[in-house]
Parts: sequence; structure tokens; C-alpha cells
Amino acid sequence: MTNDIDILVSEVGPRDGLQSIETVLPTAIKHRWIGAQASAGCREIEVGSFVPPKLLPQMSDTADVVRHALEIPELTVAVLVPNLRGAENAIAAGAHKISIPFSVSETHSLRNVRKNHEQMLAEVAKIAELVANVEPERRPHFEAGLSTAFGCTLEGAISEDLVVRSAERLIDCGVAEVGLSDTTGYANPSQVKRLVRKVKAAVGDDRLTGVHLHNTRGLGLANALAAIEEGITTVDSSLGGIGGCPFAPGASGNIVTEDLVFMLEAMGLRTGIDLDRLLSVRDILRQALPDEPLYGFTPDAGLPKDFNVAA
Amino acid sequence: MTNDIDILVSEVGPRDGLQSIETVLPTAIKHRWIGAQASAGCREIEVGSFVPPKLLPQMSDTADVVRHALEIPELTVAVLVPNLRGAENAIAAGAHKISIPFSVSETHSLRNVRKNHEQMLAEVAKIAELVANVEPERRPHFEAGLSTAFGCTLEGAISEDLVVRSAERLIDCGVAEVGLSDTTGYANPSQVKRLVRKVKAAVGDDRLTGVHLHNTRGLGLANALAAIEEGITTVDSSLGGIGGCPFAPGASGNIVTEDLVFMLEAMGLRTGIDLDRLLSVRDILRQALPDEPLYGFTPDAGLPKDFNVAA
Repeated sequence: MTNDIDILVSEVGPRDGLQSIETVLPTAIKHRWIGAQASAGCREIEVGSFVPPKLLPQMSDTADVVRHALEIPELTVAVLVPNLRGAENAIAAGAHKISIPFSVSETHSLRNVRKNHEQMLAEVAKIAELVANVEPERRPHFEAGLSTAFGCTLEGAISEDLVVRSAERLIDCGVAEVGLSDTTGYANPSQVKRLVRKVKAAVGDDRLTGVHLHNTRGLGLANALAAIEEGITTVDSSLGGIGGCPFAPGASGNIVTEDLVFMLEAMGLRTGIDLDRLLSVRDILRQALPDEPLYGFTPDAGLPKDFNVAA
Repeated sequence: MTNDIDILVSEVGPRDGLQSIETVLPTAIKHRWIGAQASAGCREIEVGSFVPPKLLPQMSDTADVVRHALEIPELTVAVLVPNLRGAENAIAAGAHKISIPFSVSETHSLRNVRKNHEQMLAEVAKIAELVANVEPERRPHFEAGLSTAFGCTLEGAISEDLVVRSAERLIDCGVAEVGLSDTTGYANPSQVKRLVRKVKAAVGDDRLTGVHLHNTRGLGLANALAAIEEGITTVDSSLGGIGGCPFAPGASGNIVTEDLVFMLEAMGLRTGIDLDRLLSVRDILRQALPDEPLYGFTPDAGLPKDFNVAA
């Protein structure tokens, strides 16, 4: 992260948002969206995932989307990969950052990717080796997201010790960083603070800088605030909470980027993002996905009188 | 507040929620709602306001509603009053707690109640004298809410010094306590913390224990968290965010009680409220006001697996 911003708002809409939407967004529209949001000041965008196209047709153009996004100056182009094969594709495409989800709930891991913890760690180690062998100037940042870290719809409560041990083992396997993900929308602010502290204590401050939180029970921004108070500097969110109806099966319920940026900027924390321009990016989604609801309070309420003047 | 709870969730739906709804809720339904919510464990409910019935027909039965609510054991019956006349009616009805809004934005004060600050302070002083003359066992707790404390749609930014001075002058006029109100939904967590600290420093910790926050820009729970971290122990909210579409003119956009209680209980802060029973109180509103939207994420998402077990 450069020194001219305090918090990196990492846009995950083109990946986490779109993946739960059936209408396949044309590649050209993805390009427009990513370009417009980068122009509004977003420094990092997760543009897609390298999963088998048969499983997720929405993501079948990820290599193209990455290549286009790489042409945007000062944008960190992130992708999600579920396995070694995905990592190979991500590296071939030239992504700056690759993330792999690791379910702390082993039941969830087996259900989602048919791998237990040992198998996942072996996969992560192979990817880390692959990444290490990439020439330095093209080498991506490799991160593992600790999903279901705050609770699991299948297992219920998740042991905090297991989260910490998983973080340590992932670092041992060679990831540069771990992240904490509230996959299920179970997190509360006290738990966020406690878990950020514990994981940082175990793996080091520079090995946990980001959180991926959901707004399933309305606590998304409160949890983000708690994380930031514990020194977290990267927060994931999704424009318009796209794909994020928290009540529909499979939907993500991501934090809404517009509300998150409003909160941070109002607090005097610099995101580098121009709120007015960010709000206008919604038009692209509204036109391209007319049947998808767009969420967020700030877009409807508007900015406070003299907001930009006061800030 | 009794010692068996950590945070007092003060339900303001029957007053702040209903006042922006045109359909007049029958008195019997108000009784049912208040009774059901008290049975779910709510310890304080603002049941109505003593305003001229012609101005607000929805509140014309407040004296009846107060008298009924007084029969509920362990419930603090609160009302809002705009002036001395309202306070006389509130005392006659036997309310436990009376609140008067004082707009820190003088423009807002003139627009809303046609009184400048000096006139408002004179009114508050008269009410304080009236209250002081009530026999001790029937004497209500008298509070002034500093509305527009975090910004005003008419004036824009509000001077924090003016908020502090207003708090001091209201205490000098004889109110037992002041509260901070984000009437416009402009507040952010840093501002909440700063202003709570400043006002507490000026008037004393026991003279500022409550906040009234809105969710207009989605920051309601984050702001509540910030307030609680600064020692605030009473947070206002409205069941189902009733009357609270933040985009309709005149609507309040109150914090949703269900989401607030979920956040607090998940954090291990005791509210005294049974969440399952609270959620069922929504049925009363859904039946009585079928055309009014009910808000909240937790009611739709449901409680996390093993939530009550874990807590």
C-alpha cells in the first residue's frame, strides 16, 4: 500500500459479487466497470477467479479480464484461485495478487472443495513453491483467506485456537499473508478484535493486514471498524453489495463499497477514492444488470451537506 | 439501569417510528406492541410524545398509552415533549422519563419549533422547575436530547464547541442528563467518540449516558459501537426500523432494534432481551401496518447456528 492512503478498500464485486449472479456479464462490461472504479481511485480490485468454466461460466473470461486490468496504471489486480491449476492460470495471466480460501471449518472445506485440512495445506505448499519460482518482477503476492473464521453454518462456533493454528500452518506452507474471512456473516466486533489480535500475535503484524467481512446480519461496517481499530489496513467490499442479497441462498452479502468508503472518509481515513465518482460507477451495473438489486444506504441518502468541504 | 444488564436498549419505535407513519395505529395495538416488547425483556420504551393532537394525530392517545404502560412491571415509560405544556401532560400521565429535543443547529430549532436557543433554554428551565416540584416518588427523570449534534441538513457541519456549550447550559437549566442525537444520519464513529468524550468531560460521565443514532448512511451500528466503546450505556433503536425508510422525506432511519440487540448479545454485552421473542414482536407490526416496510438484516438471516448455546 502506498503512503498516500490509510485504508485500502479492496473491491471484490467483479469476483465475489458476480459469482452468485447467473446473468453472465459481458467481458467488455467488466472492463468498463473495473476501469471506471479504478478511475474513481480504487487501488485494488479482485477481478475474477480461475475456476473451471463449466462450474462458473461467469468467471470463464478471467484471463482476459486480468490482462485488460493490468493495463490500468497503479491498480493491483487480484484474483481468487481454488487450487494449483488455478494458480498456474493466474500466474500465466500475470495477476499481481492471488488468494486461496482455506476453510477453518473442515466440514465446510470438505463440502466446498472436497479437501480436508492436510490436503489443502499440501495444495497451498505446492502453489507457494510455484510462486517462489516465478521471476521476482512477475511474482504475485500470495495470500490465504481463512474462511469461516468467525463461525460456520455447518459446524457452528469455530475454535479460535484452530484459526490461529491454521494461520501459522499456512504461513509455514509459504503464503506471504493470511486474511480473516467472515464467510457466514457470524462475526461480531468483539470477536473481530480478539481474533485479529490473536492471529497477529501468532504470525506477525505484517502477515495479517486484511479482512473480508459480510453484512449478513447488518454488522459489516461495525466489524470493519473493529478490525481497523486493531490495525487492519485492507478491507474487502463490493460495489452496490452486488450479488449480495444476504437472504438468497449462496449470496455473499458483502459490505457495500459506497457505505464503507463514506464511513472511512468521514472518519478522516484516506481511501484515495472519490466518493462522487464511485457513486456514478453504479450506473454501469444498473444498466448491465437491471434485474439485480443494488444495495447501500449512502447512494440513496446522498452525502451530507458540505461533506467534501468539511473533509 | 439495573446491574443485570450492560447496555440499555431503549425502544423508540412507538414514538419516533410511528410519528412518521400516517396510518394511526389503534391504541389497543400500541398496548400489545409495548406489552410484547417488554415481555421480550426491553426495559425502557419511549411510548409516545405529548404534542398537539392536531399536529400529530398518531400521538393523540399518548396519555392512554402511558397509563397502560405504567402497569407493566420493571418498564421505564419514556415520552418526548416539545415544550412546557407537553411536560405538564407527561407528568400528569405519570411518565417515568421525559425528554425534550434541543437542536444545536439554531436554524433547525427555529424551523422545527420556532424557538431560538435562548427561548429553548428558558422553556427547559421552566420544565426543570416543574419537575423539581413533583413529589419525589412521582418525579420523572428529565433529559434533553442534543439533536443535530453531528451535523444539520440546513447548516451543514455543527461546531463541537457549540454542542459542548449547549450541553453545559442545559445542565445549568436543570436537566438531569443530556443525550447526543444524530438526527440527520451524518455521524461517523470517530466523531461519535470525540463528541462523547468532550461532552462527558464537560458535564460529567453520569450526565451523558445515552445516544440516539440513525442509520441513514448505514453507519448506525458502527456509531453505536463507537459510543459504547466510550462508555455510553443507553442506545435508542426502533423495532423493524419502523417508520425508518431513510430515503423518504421525514423518515427517521433509526437503528433497527433486532440488529442492535444481536450485535450486543453476540459481543457478550447483556441487554436483558430475548432475541427470539423480540423477533416475534415484529408480527404485531406486520399485521397492523401491512403496507409499512420492516427493516433489519438479522430477522431475515436468522440467528447463527448454536448462537444461544455459544452465548
